[in-house]
Amino acid sequence: MRKEHDSLGDREVPDDALYGIHSLRAQENFRISGVLLSDFPELVRALAMVRKAAASANRRLGVLPLAKAEAIAVACDTLISDQHHDAFIVDMMQGGAGTSTNMNANEVIANLGLRSMGHALGDYRHLHPNDDVNKSQSTNDVYPTALRLAVLQKMPALTAEHQRLRDAFEAKAAEFDGIAKVGRTQLQDAVPMTLGQEFRSFANTIDEDIDRLQDVAKLLTEVNLGGTAIGTSVNTPPNYTEVAVAQLAQISGWPLKPARNLVEASSDLGAFVAFSGILKRVAVKLSKICNDLRLLSSGPRSGIGEIHLPPVQAGSSIMPGKVNPVIPEVVNQVAFQVIGNDLTVTMAAEAGQLQLNAMEPVAIFNILQSIRILKRAMTCLTDRCVVGIEADEARCGALLENSLALATSLVPIIGYEEAARVAKHALNTGVSVPDALSALGIEANVDLS
Amino acid sequence: MRKEHDSLGDREVPDDALYGIHSLRAQENFRISGVLLSDFPELVRALAMVRKAAASANRRLGVLPLAKAEAIAVACDTLISDQHHDAFIVDMMQGGAGTSTNMNANEVIANLGLRSMGHALGDYRHLHPNDDVNKSQSTNDVYPTALRLAVLQKMPALTAEHQRLRDAFEAKAAEFDGIAKVGRTQLQDAVPMTLGQEFRSFANTIDEDIDRLQDVAKLLTEVNLGGTAIGTSVNTPPNYTEVAVAQLAQISGWPLKPARNLVEASSDLGAFVAFSGILKRVAVKLSKICNDLRLLSSGPRSGIGEIHLPPVQAGSSIMPGKVNPVIPEVVNQVAFQVIGNDLTVTMAAEAGQLQLNAMEPVAIFNILQSIRILKRAMTCLTDRCVVGIEADEARCGALLENSLALATSLVPIIGYEEAARVAKHALNTGVSVPDALSALGIEANVDLS
Amino acid sequence: MRKEHDSLGDREVPDDALYGIHSLRAQENFRISGVLLSDFPELVRALAMVRKAAASANRRLGVLPLAKAEAIAVACDTLISDQHHDAFIVDMMQGGAGTSTNMNANEVIANLGLRSMGHALGDYRHLHPNDDVNKSQSTNDVYPTALRLAVLQKMPALTAEHQRLRDAFEAKAAEFDGIAKVGRTQLQDAVPMTLGQEFRSFANTIDEDIDRLQDVAKLLTEVNLGGTAIGTSVNTPPNYTEVAVAQLAQISGWPLKPARNLVEASSDLGAFVAFSGILKRVAVKLSKICNDLRLLSSGPRSGIGEIHLPPVQAGSSIMPGKVNPVIPEVVNQVAFQVIGNDLTVTMAAEAGQLQLNAMEPVAIFNILQSIRILKRAMTCLTDRCVVGIEADEARCGALLENSLALATSLVPIIGYEEAARVAKHALNTGVSVPDALSALGIEANVDLS
Amino acid sequence: MRKEHDSLGDREVPDDALYGIHSLRAQENFRISGVLLSDFPELVRALAMVRKAAASANRRLGVLPLAKAEAIAVACDTLISDQHHDAFIVDMMQGGAGTSTNMNANEVIANLGLRSMGHALGDYRHLHPNDDVNKSQSTNDVYPTALRLAVLQKMPALTAEHQRLRDAFEAKAAEFDGIAKVGRTQLQDAVPMTLGQEFRSFANTIDEDIDRLQDVAKLLTEVNLGGTAIGTSVNTPPNYTEVAVAQLAQISGWPLKPARNLVEASSDLGAFVAFSGILKRVAVKLSKICNDLRLLSSGPRSGIGEIHLPPVQAGSSIMPGKVNPVIPEVVNQVAFQVIGNDLTVTMAAEAGQLQLNAMEPVAIFNILQSIRILKRAMTCLTDRCVVGIEADEARCGALLENSLALATSLVPIIGYEEAARVAKHALNTGVSVPDALSALGIEANVDLS
Repeated sequence: MRKEHDSLGDREVPDDALYGIHSLRAQENFRISGVLLSDFPELVRALAMVRKAAASANRRLGVLPLAKAEAIAVACDTLISDQHHDAFIVDMMQGGAGTSTNMNANEVIANLGLRSMGHALGDYRHLHPNDDVNKSQSTNDVYPTALRLAVLQKMPALTAEHQRLRDAFEAKAAEFDGIAKVGRTQLQDAVPMTLGQEFRSFANTIDEDIDRLQDVAKLLTEVNLGGTAIGTSVNTPPNYTEVAVAQLAQISGWPLKPARNLVEASSDLGAFVAFSGILKRVAVKLSKICNDLRLLSSGPRSGIGEIHLPPVQAGSSIMPGKVNPVIPEVVNQVAFQVIGNDLTVTMAAEAGQLQLNAMEPVAIFNILQSIRILKRAMTCLTDRCVVGIEADEARCGALLENSLALATSLVPIIGYEEAARVAKHALNTGVSVPDALSALGIEANVDLS
Repeated sequence: MRKEHDSLGDREVPDDALYGIHSLRAQENFRISGVLLSDFPELVRALAMVRKAAASANRRLGVLPLAKAEAIAVACDTLISDQHHDAFIVDMMQGGAGTSTNMNANEVIANLGLRSMGHALGDYRHLHPNDDVNKSQSTNDVYPTALRLAVLQKMPALTAEHQRLRDAFEAKAAEFDGIAKVGRTQLQDAVPMTLGQEFRSFANTIDEDIDRLQDVAKLLTEVNLGGTAIGTSVNTPPNYTEVAVAQLAQISGWPLKPARNLVEASSDLGAFVAFSGILKRVAVKLSKICNDLRLLSSGPRSGIGEIHLPPVQAGSSIMPGKVNPVIPEVVNQVAFQVIGNDLTVTMAAEAGQLQLNAMEPVAIFNILQSIRILKRAMTCLTDRCVVGIEADEARCGALLENSLALATSLVPIIGYEEAARVAKHALNTGVSVPDALSALGIEANVDLS
Repeated sequence: MRKEHDSLGDREVPDDALYGIHSLRAQENFRISGVLLSDFPELVRALAMVRKAAASANRRLGVLPLAKAEAIAVACDTLISDQHHDAFIVDMMQGGAGTSTNMNANEVIANLGLRSMGHALGDYRHLHPNDDVNKSQSTNDVYPTALRLAVLQKMPALTAEHQRLRDAFEAKAAEFDGIAKVGRTQLQDAVPMTLGQEFRSFANTIDEDIDRLQDVAKLLTEVNLGGTAIGTSVNTPPNYTEVAVAQLAQISGWPLKPARNLVEASSDLGAFVAFSGILKRVAVKLSKICNDLRLLSSGPRSGIGEIHLPPVQAGSSIMPGKVNPVIPEVVNQVAFQVIGNDLTVTMAAEAGQLQLNAMEPVAIFNILQSIRILKRAMTCLTDRCVVGIEADEARCGALLENSLALATSLVPIIGYEEAARVAKHALNTGVSVPDALSALGIEANVDLS
Repeated sequence: MRKEHDSLGDREVPDDALYGIHSLRAQENFRISGVLLSDFPELVRALAMVRKAAASANRRLGVLPLAKAEAIAVACDTLISDQHHDAFIVDMMQGGAGTSTNMNANEVIANLGLRSMGHALGDYRHLHPNDDVNKSQSTNDVYPTALRLAVLQKMPALTAEHQRLRDAFEAKAAEFDGIAKVGRTQLQDAVPMTLGQEFRSFANTIDEDIDRLQDVAKLLTEVNLGGTAIGTSVNTPPNYTEVAVAQLAQISGWPLKPARNLVEASSDLGAFVAFSGILKRVAVKLSKICNDLRLLSSGPRSGIGEIHLPPVQAGSSIMPGKVNPVIPEVVNQVAFQVIGNDLTVTMAAEAGQLQLNAMEPVAIFNILQSIRILKRAMTCLTDRCVVGIEADEARCGALLENSLALATSLVPIIGYEEAARVAKHALNTGVSVPDALSALGIEANVDLS
């Protein structure tokens, strides 16, 4: 064990630990969710990118010696390539506005840097977590910046799954274009449509959500790096913000830019509220689609039964042969979780006070979780459900033929009231619309096919 | 116009106004929802009852002269009998933790009292809104007490409508007891049941909610009257709390008792959070029931169609003869509103600070609204939907006969795996379960009827 | 009384009523919120604009005689100019996916048209609510289109109040630019800033919300007019959608365009979910700002007390001289309401089924309410609070001078750990940072002013 | 690898796996949250208890041979003693209404039983997951019963931590009873109180929540075991429900009883909605308390500063010597999570359809998570914050002496208006209340100490 020191006193730290005393205290203080920083590699990578950019800016601006800057860069690259993430031991749910996350990164980077410089772990005289790694920085600008970058990193994969789901519905739409069926409003038979139209509307609604997510993600490219403690850029050299953000843009590959007002940006979670609100919208639409899939496949004999979902497991421990829409069901539940998570994000955002929002950790935890389960749910829905959906063309046709959906086409010919009389007669006597027309002696020159 | 005075200066008040300068300023300050105190007569009555009880206690304890106490009592009785409520001009959504509501009551009672004493309105030397009407009281104990009493007053009518709805479902259950049908889980055909059982479960689930509401309403009988500003009972005579609460119990007819800890009770909205949580549960259950009614009545030809809801209006401006489940639909929407309102109550409760919760007005506004729309929704559902529901016995029977719901009964006889083979064969070949048994050459001595 | 007829039978309607039998039944069916269509003039106007556009398109496309089209246009203009709104008697909270709202408009327009043509009210042979006014239309395209238009109409006034609030904060920022004070993170003293910076961040955060609202409102310019019942454009002449939407754009002055997929657009509430999500964001930020105003003005003597809010009413019925932050408090409560309303919108959107969302009425009711109370809250906050805020420069200065906020500036000079030792010494001994430096014998060439 | 079979075909299962083909398919189908059944040992234990009770009932009622019943009992006891939980491989977030959880339990128990009987794993001819382990049972009664039992099992530890927190506040209240301070309403100085009263109100409010949790937990003792698929008890022997529930009560030690209406109980999540609603209330109160702790400890010099929270870690990476209220902050965040989780539970409950609620898995996942993080948050708050809180008696006294809190005591002597004049004078001139009295020449025989 090696001894480390902070303002609360001394503590022993395991000899080979890349983290230090601050991480250790935080680990002990926050035993809450059991989900650690290391469970979100995108966040660890983002923290390392920010640190690498800051070190580069500090060196360029003459406030950090080259040797230290290089040691920090080496350490950050190690983390960016997903090594040593197990040294990120702090719980995602933490007090302190992210200070523990930030210090965990400071300490691991310092120690990785020390190792690369040939010094002992913990010998911070040669590379200090606060004075060197954290130079010109504060949790209050590093953490919000890293959070945005973490979310941005998840976007391509999320969008890819979104797109795959969209394409799967579009392919089914093409497959089902020739299948006429009853359209339903308020669960009541309405007018004819095709099953292809129904599935294309699923593809289309997802298309719009993909656009919305792209739009809202742009809000996350504004970062407050350089604002330090409260946005006044205390303890930074001139031009630091511009240089550091430009470096971060280059390192990360994202078109980041400084927030217009760093004081505002230090405490504001508006971008996360907007982003989470769109995740909620994605969830709402997925849930609606899954509700529809479950309705349309209800049966097999006493429901609507216009489509068949592919069976992926036996449906019941007691009812033999039962197959249930388990994939849409789990997607519904993911949607409910994302909607609940959005409320948590909202409350966290509202609870910001004065120059900082101390509730950021729970907000980002929920956003990253929502992204993760939405992405997995879309993969699951695409591969284990949508691609295998089959139409029951005979059932679609039989229901349509038997329906009163044709009565609406009569309105322009014989007027609403007369058409209503026909529909009512058909319903009461159990006959078809053409037969009802005949029975009532109405001549209508309309193509009811 | 008469002139009144407060610590901000002078203001003219209409000569015949029963309210005074504080109400006037509050009316101007809070033009928000447009819903006024006078729109909730139960709250005005509750405020008057509290004042009457306080005056009585003050007189008994020797701190208020008989003449003033009697004038206050007369004024309060006028309000309790629903007169002059139009003098309650303040918006329900207000800052100030209810002070404006309280001062509106103080001023109206003072002026009604002055009138009964033969004095001019506004001549507060003879009966003062603060020194006499508000004696031994503060907004911070009067307002929370009145809110609880307002909710309690609405309980009997709410419960009566709840009970009528329950009875309507029970009556339908008795009517439908002989109708066999397919039970469904996960929208898939499961095992047989009767339509009576299905409707009885609606009655039963409502029964439980009636119990829950009774239970949770008991929490509202604990009041903080006598705690005054922050629960320390500053400016009250000895024994005031006990005497005033006992008076209020007698006047109101509710078994009120003092809260165990008046300091805690001054800022705590826990009873409202719990109450609103049960209103939310009521809403959730009504919504589930209405979802079921809409599913069961889906059709008329391309859905489940086991029941028919009574038509209450034409369903479509374009589709003749269409009849929609409009009553369950509006109840679903009321449920969503109540669930949203519960969130508002929750956030208001969380926002309390130190010795008071300044957000109480929006909490009570939402609770009273939820009670109102839930009650009306239940009336509407009972009278315009449930009592007129008809079963389609033929449809129920046909679906059951055609279903695979009987396969489960085979399990104890031939085992789960063999029964699953039968069900699968029946489904794939389109035959019934008994026919599938024969086709597979399985002998099973089971009553499949 | 005159007699009218629908598929449920005959009903008497008051002789001079502009509404008809469908409105009457709906009024009776939905006694829920007590808030009527007529309470939202923007919605009545929007319905009239849609009808006028449809009649114009129908005439141009040759399916509606000129005389009828003109009568409809005259009737619509009457409504657009805010006359006869009291004929819109249906509750905003209604089942039927807006059919009752739509039929209320159909009937009023038909009757106003009949009157202009010299016919008796209710004599629908000459101008029929369904066959003429509703020609080529369905509730399912008219209603969603009108809802979007109603919201768009409210945008300029909402934005204007938003802008006024922003400007008020900006003006205060300029006024307070020279006032140095302690910045606070996590309610703990952090580093120096100016009161101007603090207020400018309020202005800036509102600026961003104004942009977000403008962005999201664009989603509402995509309308599904012409899709009729389920988006398949049944019962419309060729090119109807394009012509009708172009007409509506011209009549309304908004750059409306047809949705890309009318089937999808018929059931989708995504635009409302996104819009409501941004209203929620606006609410969250206003609430955070108001929390800050209340914190900064806490006192007058035992709190932070750096600013004084203008007194707008006496604060307490029992505590003389008390002035409370009642305006921020009511804005907090409005925010909680808007957040609760957003949940209701979310649940309504999720509950759409198949080709329609029957829960649209409660969604739009909540959105229009949120807009209304947010706008009023901003007016109230600007005029009755922000413009009158005064800084307590002496208090700001005294707190700063006495604080440890200067210790951070030492870090680049003497390092984090040494600076922490200085801060700790200052705190424990009650001295200032410069004095602690001297006491510890540390020389630091830093400007601590 | 061994080969297993279900209605979808053959699959290889690892030779030594205690789970079987159904678990394996479910594991593959639901890769969503990454949180597995094995992460909630209380749920695995509960499933085992239910199975043991069912086997016992089946044997007593003569439908299961003794040898099989004993093998099942042995297997269940193994799980009840927390062994082999790693065989519970299914994700907590799953479709199928819990069927996968149930089948995971059926398969593990069958295999443990087979092993104890000396048979090979997977040789289900001797002990079948469905025909024997699941005999007289269905997911639809086993799963809801086990969920209730899982929650009940967590209650004693949750209550113990709740009680410890309450006691910690009570101890502080006793310690602080002699410390006079300013009470505050709406963040404005109000009237005097003691710090002991303030802390006792925290203890008291928690006391009430402990009671509420006990009350609501009673709802969970009603179980639907014996209802099987939809509550009609298909495939159970006579008296099965009574015998099985009695057995389960004995095995579990909880006073369980059969639900009054098994059909209703099969689909109803009302008890979970109520329970989660009370967890939400607990969260709301904890959040309010933590907000207060953060306010009261704000400073160290530019805030209220009446109490000091124990430092548990350095507060800032940039600001030396800063100590933040990190423990209350993490508890606030836990509260926001619990409130978000409650919304997820609510939406899941509302989404039940007909005879089942397929969304139960996400509901129980959220409830168990909320219990877990609330319990840990309370431990953390007690041990790392409350027990170490210190009062700043000098600061409390100085603020009180300097305050206008004494003006209220003047009201009964000199009247509200005159007292307001005194308070205003004191405020404007910066003097104390007694000095203002003198300055205005008012004689008031009141003890202002």
